[in-house]
Amino acid sequence: MKFSEIGEFGFIDSIKGWCDIPAKGVIKGIGDDCAVLRATPGRELLFTTDMLVQDIHFMIDRIPFYHLGRKAIAVNLSDIAAMGGRPLIALISLAIPAETEVEEIHELYRGMRDICEHYNLTIGGGDTVASLDKLVINVSVIGDAKKSEVLYRSGSGPGDRIYLTGPVGDSAAGLKILTAEIAPPEGMGDYFIKTHNDPVPLVEIGEIIAASGIASAMIDLSDGLLSDLGHICEESKAGALLLAEKIPISPELTLLAGSAGFDALELALSGGEDYQLLFTAPMEHEQGIDKLFKEHDLHPPYHIGEIGQGPGIRMKRADGSLGELQARGFNHFNRNQRRDYG
Amino acid sequence: MKFSEIGEFGFIDSIKGWCDIPAKGVIKGIGDDCAVLRATPGRELLFTTDMLVQDIHFMIDRIPFYHLGRKAIAVNLSDIAAMGGRPLIALISLAIPAETEVEEIHELYRGMRDICEHYNLTIGGGDTVASLDKLVINVSVIGDAKKSEVLYRSGSGPGDRIYLTGPVGDSAAGLKILTAEIAPPEGMGDYFIKTHNDPVPLVEIGEIIAASGIASAMIDLSDGLLSDLGHICEESKAGALLLAEKIPISPELTLLAGSAGFDALELALSGGEDYQLLFTAPMEHEQGIDKLFKEHDLHPPYHIGEIGQGPGIRMKRADGSLGELQARGFNHFNRNQRRDYG
Repeated sequence: MKFSEIGEFGFIDSIKGWCDIPAKGVIKGIGDDCAVLRATPGRELLFTTDMLVQDIHFMIDRIPFYHLGRKAIAVNLSDIAAMGGRPLIALISLAIPAETEVEEIHELYRGMRDICEHYNLTIGGGDTVASLDKLVINVSVIGDAKKSEVLYRSGSGPGDRIYLTGPVGDSAAGLKILTAEIAPPEGMGDYFIKTHNDPVPLVEIGEIIAASGIASAMIDLSDGLLSDLGHICEESKAGALLLAEKIPISPELTLLAGSAGFDALELALSGGEDYQLLFTAPMEHEQGIDKLFKEHDLHPPYHIGEIGQGPGIRMKRADGSLGELQARGFNHFNRNQRRDYG
Repeated sequence: MKFSEIGEFGFIDSIKGWCDIPAKGVIKGIGDDCAVLRATPGRELLFTTDMLVQDIHFMIDRIPFYHLGRKAIAVNLSDIAAMGGRPLIALISLAIPAETEVEEIHELYRGMRDICEHYNLTIGGGDTVASLDKLVINVSVIGDAKKSEVLYRSGSGPGDRIYLTGPVGDSAAGLKILTAEIAPPEGMGDYFIKTHNDPVPLVEIGEIIAASGIASAMIDLSDGLLSDLGHICEESKAGALLLAEKIPISPELTLLAGSAGFDALELALSGGEDYQLLFTAPMEHEQGIDKLFKEHDLHPPYHIGEIGQGPGIRMKRADGSLGELQARGFNHFNRNQRRDYG
């Protein structure tokens, strides 16, 4: 059945029952002019939104609708994670071309519902509208975090160490494969495509880092390592020195880069959509951080550099040479014409 | 200058300074992964979102960008008003075709900023992305209302009177004029076009009604009187009887309908985008309501019918005849392929 046949009324009736996921403080979910939420005393509210546009952020035949639904929620949860928060409620706006199969939008919604269920947030409604040709998805999420634990981009100071929760560049490699810019060796494509199409928001890790009180600033990597580190530097009025050989690159990416003939480090620095967390912490917390991650059975974070007086980001290469990096100069590598600002 | 030349980074830098409107409880606006908000004790949070798509909800050459910006915010504020709340913070997602003039998006933003300033809400950031061809605007708003005062769709009971804050159908007439479906008599077009392009969200009136404790349910008219009254009936598990001759129709609409040859009442019932408030109240509050509106120098609300046992909506015509109305049957009159559900 086409979306135009079931209509918005019919569609909403068909998914209403999927949305009612019990979540902290939600008094009224779907079905009124607004969703209604009761804040938890002692916690700040976090508010974020992200838009995904067909043919800009995704190609409809290169991502299963189920993954697209998960991803549209995940990128918002990653923003909540970056502040050290937990998600509570999402509102979903969809602009749907009339010719879309209802089954496909149900798959999209099933992906959204599953990831919301996993992270205990309610789908509190939204807006379903027609679109002439492209599918557009906008998700807004409210989360919260303990007052004393909210982690901003602006808290870094000179001497702080820069940490990364995991390897970068794999998602960008997935995009190169999806757009047929490169051809992966037999059996290697799926890993990168999965990383790109179904990113995991690091909500638990973000909360653990925030609760420890060890970090001075945090951001999630959506625009690319350099660009997002640039936001930390800008908001903290500082600079940064990166150690090239410390940037975590997966063995898979090293292999792929060798076979396809691109620079893995460059992709790791500029690729975008990694959804790893980058945080900074004063040097004296070095051992505390290792202990914290061990306690929670997490892979220790990668220490990739230091915050300095600034301005700008420099990088020390393995041969000892030092180069200035322009965070914004790397945007032409980034197919995602987007910038997240709240 | 084209949007593609300034880019998202340049654009956001250019409007950052416009967003910082002081608002109750906003700790961090634009510039981090999330906006941060502190809830006011004793108040519930309200959360709503609306999407406007070029060529579905607006035609780019029939609405000034300034009005489009105002309207994108206004339709959300109307949802906050419908719960009896006050708005606090908005996040704005824009998908912008590369060929758009920066000046035009600045006008859009100027409209958003002006209406936000008027209603004391902050623009807390958002997401700015590229679009291949159509402009898409999604706005999400958080507001709040006193715990005991939140007005749901579900509170109506048989015997309650149905009230409307003002005339309906003018916006739909404006749309008919904009799409050249009808030609207005000399000098009459502007009134209807303004009503359609620059709707006024009834935030103060919504708060006054909610604070009075007199109303049992409330909704804003976005889908059309019948459709939205239908939501009240559905959520309240009730029916309604409308009195045809009590439906408020502006003298302008009566004139236009006569000259252009359409049924003013039908448009008033089904038109959509009126953004008036419809509320219900037990009969014993009849005099209290008149007194309340007089106290606040407001035009008294129009008493248009009664809530009954239901189901369904019936209408009593001037000649005493009674007809069954199908709320959903009227959707084919509604060019706006949308339904708001939270």
